[in-house]
Amino acid sequence: MKPPIINFSTLQSAIEIAATLAFALSGLLAGARKHLDMVGLCIVAGLSAFGGGTLRDVLLDRRPFFWVEHADWLWALMGLSFAAMLFLRRRHLALTEKAIQWPDALGLGLFTANGALLALQTGQPAIVAVLMGVITATFGGVLRDIVCNEIPAAFHDHRPYALCSFAGAWMLVAAVRLEAPEWVAISAAAATAVALRALALWRGWTLPAWRINKR
Amino acid sequence: MKPPIINFSTLQSAIEIAATLAFALSGLLAGARKHLDMVGLCIVAGLSAFGGGTLRDVLLDRRPFFWVEHADWLWALMGLSFAAMLFLRRRHLALTEKAIQWPDALGLGLFTANGALLALQTGQPAIVAVLMGVITATFGGVLRDIVCNEIPAAFHDHRPYALCSFAGAWMLVAAVRLEAPEWVAISAAAATAVALRALALWRGWTLPAWRINKR
Amino acid sequence: MKPPIINFSTLQSAIEIAATLAFALSGLLAGARKHLDMVGLCIVAGLSAFGGGTLRDVLLDRRPFFWVEHADWLWALMGLSFAAMLFLRRRHLALTEKAIQWPDALGLGLFTANGALLALQTGQPAIVAVLMGVITATFGGVLRDIVCNEIPAAFHDHRPYALCSFAGAWMLVAAVRLEAPEWVAISAAAATAVALRALALWRGWTLPAWRINKR
Repeated sequence: MKPPIINFSTLQSAIEIAATLAFALSGLLAGARKHLDMVGLCIVAGLSAFGGGTLRDVLLDRRPFFWVEHADWLWALMGLSFAAMLFLRRRHLALTEKAIQWPDALGLGLFTANGALLALQTGQPAIVAVLMGVITATFGGVLRDIVCNEIPAAFHDHRPYALCSFAGAWMLVAAVRLEAPEWVAISAAAATAVALRALALWRGWTLPAWRINKR
Repeated sequence: MKPPIINFSTLQSAIEIAATLAFALSGLLAGARKHLDMVGLCIVAGLSAFGGGTLRDVLLDRRPFFWVEHADWLWALMGLSFAAMLFLRRRHLALTEKAIQWPDALGLGLFTANGALLALQTGQPAIVAVLMGVITATFGGVLRDIVCNEIPAAFHDHRPYALCSFAGAWMLVAAVRLEAPEWVAISAAAATAVALRALALWRGWTLPAWRINKR
Repeated sequence: MKPPIINFSTLQSAIEIAATLAFALSGLLAGARKHLDMVGLCIVAGLSAFGGGTLRDVLLDRRPFFWVEHADWLWALMGLSFAAMLFLRRRHLALTEKAIQWPDALGLGLFTANGALLALQTGQPAIVAVLMGVITATFGGVLRDIVCNEIPAAFHDHRPYALCSFAGAWMLVAAVRLEAPEWVAISAAAATAVALRALALWRGWTLPAWRINKR
């Protein structure tokens, strides 16, 4: 069976673009809430979009970073930041936040799968590859929250986010172990994370609280 | 004189395990105070345990990290986090905090000594090796506090902690200069840091305050 | 025309020393406001002075760091921290803050120019080199504010700082493209950033606010 390379990678690119914009927008919204200035908004948008992958690459000692190889993205992010500053008003905030949940969930899945696959290909053990997948998908948001002087939402809001990424990353490891073709492994892993995230959002799942914090 | 290699390295391993668990527990307690969820607790435990050594390795450009070479530790940390969530109750908090002071002090000594020795072996100047020893021993806690949205306790609580590590690291540099065998250098350095830390805890020593902050 | 190498590099060194001390002092003042202890003050001074260049070098995968090659600076910073603790009093704070604005502005210019040039020389695309210049000049302050548990002033105070660095870095890229000699490129870039920063301070310029945050 021939893998549907062109269609798959076109689809993948489209999802990546949508997801990266969603990540950047989440940074812009967080920055707006903290009254950041123009400079801060651009940087937080960039951190949200590329921070996770960059941290993964620093840990794996890989170069060049995505945003060095595709430096046009830095222009795109600046453009997005300015457009948001020009056109986004307070009345759009709630809507924007709702609208980016879905590309954000897609990004969670796809970046998890890509990050974990990349770590496996550089010979990391399974658990490390899983961790790299989770870092790729979630640490942009973590860095965004640290810069905005908040406890990272991914560690604090008791909603499954990194956990969906964790499950998806294991699916990738399993698929690679079973010698599935690359596009199958990525699709299965991303679909797992996205489906879990969608379910969690839809059903309002929360993580169990540590009873130490109960009365 | 034959160095007592086997006994020393067994002892060293035992201390390292106890100290790593103590560092991880300090992360769990800090996370509990901030009401982190399951994911946050695991990550903060991991940052506290391995953040210092990882930052040192990033700065020295060393790979693989400890937790990549010994990936089982990642499982152990997740296990510890779940066990803590299952069994630790509010009434155990004060006791746990007191109990981990001692393995934590041992870790302060041992990780300082190992970190500084490693930096010396890669040819760093003495003051840089000392700094790497201090970073190895204390920056896990620093990263823990940054993620928990606190000013790092090591910079703020006016109790000697990094300073004990600093003294121990200089002892290591001195011992290496005097061509002491490795196990003697490590023992002397770790003992210096641990003894100072124990004295500081026992006598309630505080660092002098900057008079700029006095009335 | 012979480039005035000796004079230029002597001047450059003198400016770098003054600017590094100004960056370190900004860290000490921020630390004093947060009541850091001796250890915290030394570390925050070091982060402010060397954090930006170190982050750039980690991203570009360059070694050794400035403070490893010139380890004497670590002693100098410790000396500065102790001197500040001994001699600086509350009544000197406002004056010190005012006095360091000017060497700080010079450092903004010079570190931008050097950081961007260095990135160009390692073959980065123009926009990445500009970003590296901005990171070199401003991320010491960003790390200082993160450790002090504040939203970074460079992202939040609506005063042109990173933006002056951004303009200076583009001037450097332009000068290099026009094949200007290195010292001309550095001087033009640094002068651009410094002049803009001085104008901004003098005229009290502020960045436009995002209207999302207006009533």
